[in-house]
Amino acid sequence: MRIGFIGTGVMGKAMVQHLMTAGHQLNVYNRTKSKANELVEQGAVWQDTPAKVTEQSDIIFSMVGYPSDVEEIYFGTEGIFSNDVSGKIVVDLTTSTPTLAKKIQQMAIEKGAEALDAPVSGGDLGAKNATLTIMVGGNQTAFEQVLPLFEVMGKSVRLQGPSGSGQHTKMANQIMVAATMIGMSEMMAYADKAGLNIADVLDVVGGGAAANWSMANYGPRILNEDYSPGFFVKHFIKDLKIVLDEAEKMSLELPGTALALKLYEELSEEGYDEDGTQALIKLWWPKGNKNN
Amino acid sequence: MRIGFIGTGVMGKAMVQHLMTAGHQLNVYNRTKSKANELVEQGAVWQDTPAKVTEQSDIIFSMVGYPSDVEEIYFGTEGIFSNDVSGKIVVDLTTSTPTLAKKIQQMAIEKGAEALDAPVSGGDLGAKNATLTIMVGGNQTAFEQVLPLFEVMGKSVRLQGPSGSGQHTKMANQIMVAATMIGMSEMMAYADKAGLNIADVLDVVGGGAAANWSMANYGPRILNEDYSPGFFVKHFIKDLKIVLDEAEKMSLELPGTALALKLYEELSEEGYDEDGTQALIKLWWPKGNKNN
Repeated sequence: MRIGFIGTGVMGKAMVQHLMTAGHQLNVYNRTKSKANELVEQGAVWQDTPAKVTEQSDIIFSMVGYPSDVEEIYFGTEGIFSNDVSGKIVVDLTTSTPTLAKKIQQMAIEKGAEALDAPVSGGDLGAKNATLTIMVGGNQTAFEQVLPLFEVMGKSVRLQGPSGSGQHTKMANQIMVAATMIGMSEMMAYADKAGLNIADVLDVVGGGAAANWSMANYGPRILNEDYSPGFFVKHFIKDLKIVLDEAEKMSLELPGTALALKLYEELSEEGYDEDGTQALIKLWWPKGNKNN
Repeated sequence: MRIGFIGTGVMGKAMVQHLMTAGHQLNVYNRTKSKANELVEQGAVWQDTPAKVTEQSDIIFSMVGYPSDVEEIYFGTEGIFSNDVSGKIVVDLTTSTPTLAKKIQQMAIEKGAEALDAPVSGGDLGAKNATLTIMVGGNQTAFEQVLPLFEVMGKSVRLQGPSGSGQHTKMANQIMVAATMIGMSEMMAYADKAGLNIADVLDVVGGGAAANWSMANYGPRILNEDYSPGFFVKHFIKDLKIVLDEAEKMSLELPGTALALKLYEELSEEGYDEDGTQALIKLWWPKGNKNN
């Protein structure tokens, strides 16, 4: 099968490699061409625009940064939909808005194609090890056609409902993560001020009703002053804005998520956009360690 | 060893039974005497006041509801300290304030005794199955003397530091739990409004970076409209107030925990004090299910 892949950053690159290893022919495009060089050396075929990727492919994946990038790739003058897409399937892996996912599907259907929204979770490590969780929205038939490819890239793949449902599920995930990041930060700041041994506290608290993935994974990294990005602050802010926009459309109040956005925006204003999300503790520990 | 136990509610009762099974003689007191009847039938000796429990015991445990109850039991006219406590060890298992824990230790030392603060987590099931986590504050020597008894009642027992450190560790735990409860509630409310299958979302989201104990345990209960208390709303409010009081003393801002208290107080005002903490979702689902 001819596969297109638009966006060969850290995540996209690993996914393309898995697809090539599985024996597929890949057409690739990336805004910064140099980032696709290694893939081209490994056998991928460079295409100059998203439109040209589309022309040469039956299933086209996109994995970019922001909803505005997705908009450009699909609806831009040299975008996917500027080409004939009839009979093809487009799959957006970007964490983007449910509203945009529905708009893409509508256009796809008008043009005789199909579209899936399929954001992932699991980060760069998940992409590298093909252990991603892939949350899919769209039609069952299209899902089944793409499923063998999803299974090359991820471990847990599920159709969550109609178009937009993949994005909505990812947003649900981010709501939960936002809360655990706040709780972990406040817990560590409190434990420090109370004169406790924080590593001991993480250990004891992690064995009971307070246990969570963020604390188990980021707690020790913070104690090691490791703020390298598993997931960028700037991208988390993007996601939380999407959540709150969608919630507003649904007349839904999410005070915890709103607080998370406020705190992460403060962090961003202090210049930590490129840190990992565990840097939230820097609102309490400006030096990145407890000697604040 | 002669052991005293003051407060034979659901938690205390199970703990007394484990201590008796381990071969100890138990002196018990409870504000409502009838709640101790079963234990007396099983061989515990009723004492009419905390002072009399103290007189007959070498190590005295207390497990009551609120800091005001602890205050009364230790410092009241018929309280523990109204008796000679010299050479004895008093252990407060109640989740109470670090400040009160230190006050109790100070008085104990003045009177030639020792004191430990040792709040637990794990709930009624943990008490029943002797799988509690016990977080201890106080002196090493006193800790080691009581350790064999702690090990009869709990699975994970740790000295966290000097007097008050057990309570502080429990507060750290509650900060983390408060955040996961908010996140879970907002996530489920969002998933519902977005038209997703909530059970599917819990399943997918629970497999990745959003995974946490609250979601895994309370998510399914909420879907079954089960709001029975694993942990009472009214007791969680008590704990969050302690956290925020202590934080204020430390000049520490905890906006997430403050939000949690605000939300749980709203829930309390709507009459849900006797529900389990998972009832927080009722702020979004007033009927206790998604048909709100």
